[in-house]
Amino acid sequence: MAGGALALDMKPLNPSFAADVANNFAQQPIMNLIGARLARVEPGVVEIELPFRADLTQQNGYLHAGVVTTIADSACGYAALSLMPAGSSVLSVEFKVNLLRPARGQSFVARAEVVKAGRTLSVTRADGFAIRGDAELELVATMQGTMMAVR
Amino acid sequence: MAGGALALDMKPLNPSFAADVANNFAQQPIMNLIGARLARVEPGVVEIELPFRADLTQQNGYLHAGVVTTIADSACGYAALSLMPAGSSVLSVEFKVNLLRPARGQSFVARAEVVKAGRTLSVTRADGFAIRGDAELELVATMQGTMMAVR
Amino acid sequence: MAGGALALDMKPLNPSFAADVANNFAQQPIMNLIGARLARVEPGVVEIELPFRADLTQQNGYLHAGVVTTIADSACGYAALSLMPAGSSVLSVEFKVNLLRPARGQSFVARAEVVKAGRTLSVTRADGFAIRGDAELELVATMQGTMMAVR
Amino acid sequence: MAGGALALDMKPLNPSFAADVANNFAQQPIMNLIGARLARVEPGVVEIELPFRADLTQQNGYLHAGVVTTIADSACGYAALSLMPAGSSVLSVEFKVNLLRPARGQSFVARAEVVKAGRTLSVTRADGFAIRGDAELELVATMQGTMMAVR
Repeated sequence: MAGGALALDMKPLNPSFAADVANNFAQQPIMNLIGARLARVEPGVVEIELPFRADLTQQNGYLHAGVVTTIADSACGYAALSLMPAGSSVLSVEFKVNLLRPARGQSFVARAEVVKAGRTLSVTRADGFAIRGDAELELVATMQGTMMAVR
Repeated sequence: MAGGALALDMKPLNPSFAADVANNFAQQPIMNLIGARLARVEPGVVEIELPFRADLTQQNGYLHAGVVTTIADSACGYAALSLMPAGSSVLSVEFKVNLLRPARGQSFVARAEVVKAGRTLSVTRADGFAIRGDAELELVATMQGTMMAVR
Repeated sequence: MAGGALALDMKPLNPSFAADVANNFAQQPIMNLIGARLARVEPGVVEIELPFRADLTQQNGYLHAGVVTTIADSACGYAALSLMPAGSSVLSVEFKVNLLRPARGQSFVARAEVVKAGRTLSVTRADGFAIRGDAELELVATMQGTMMAVR
Repeated sequence: MAGGALALDMKPLNPSFAADVANNFAQQPIMNLIGARLARVEPGVVEIELPFRADLTQQNGYLHAGVVTTIADSACGYAALSLMPAGSSVLSVEFKVNLLRPARGQSFVARAEVVKAGRTLSVTRADGFAIRGDAELELVATMQGTMMAVR
């Protein structure tokens, strides 16, 4: 068997997808509370960054799995939204997260990509990385989820 | 086929499980940040409550799926921990969440129970409810997850 | 907090739901190949039974996880279908399965129920039991999944 | 942020991993029943192929989701096993599958890879492809799962 590469069609239907994602992100109070920021918006790919803060941790001083999930879920939603027609909004149907390693680092990034863009349902994947020192990345979590277009 | 009831053995191995869960909960800074409190600790069953706060919401004013996940994941971890031997700690291996309805309400509760308590891995389930007015409950999310004992 | 019981509305929209489920089941060649049979069809609840057969096993002589999944997935689909309007068909969007114990027994049953019936998406749960000797049930797997109505 | 590539360490601990995987596969009666064959075994990567057969289908003539899951789950297990020490065996802890498109084709392949190899738990991913005509691949399902080493 050859490559295994996904034949993804990542052409955006909405010319202002990047501005729409940024506007939507700015309307999420939870992102402000935890200190997350939108770091990258391309067709079908979105990254959200989150600097470490002690008040986001669980009992061992690592980022709580729910916080990793919060940025991964939003990154998945926006990755899906970036490929939807103008005027769409997006809801999370479901997601599944594996926690791979303790989430310790100076900051974190959730990198989401669309696996399949559908008219109603889109399937997405996100990797959560911890960043330590100089750009060293460690994969700490991975998500697979389903997002729904609402018009 | 008869009942389908789960034949669960819910006898705690750790006589001070309730105090241990409460102590552990108190050491999670994220629970303080979002305003969650431990509402119920019984062998294999844990509930965490969270009053609504506007800074926990997503773009439509509903609780963010990641916040629902945060309390559901912790409730699952503590439900599993309540059945582990004294001196154990618990890590989330993975979880999957279905978002069923918009999470709007005056407060929320995640109710977790152990489906199977194992020596290393425990499988748990949590339902997330929104509470409106007088004790009316609406199921807004449901989680199935795997927790791991660490000694 | 009181019960935690799900307030499910399980009234069938399709008066001939049971016959429609049975007809659909009869059109699934895979059910015939593995020897599964439809054991119970009620509004929002479906059971599929599968007698043990050595050619359905994995390397340790237990039922393969994929076979348990096959009957659990179909039970979830039919549980969802039982609550859909006449003329609907159903597709699996996604599911997640935890394997709890080795699937050994004289027969197996997947018992599915609808957690939330929606116009397009329905969320379901299924438990997979092994049956040994006289009606002793052991929970060997549990599924949480999303089913989609197609009209 | 740069690449996002996973820093995977895919060095096999077991020099005869490929023979061990092949032997194990040969001991799975279900693989023989459905006609699956082991197509590729490399450290951390395993592919299982399955020619189309009408008796493996659901009511629309497509491969049943449970059959896709059967080969994806086994591919994940063997991908994990390929990186475990000699003498290990592997069990599926849990998996989650998204069904992306109808599984129609002349044959199918499940391609699994290890996302994180751990001493006890390994996290894996598998893509399920339908093959039509001349090597045209279509992604029809994707799995994320947890496998456990048993010694």
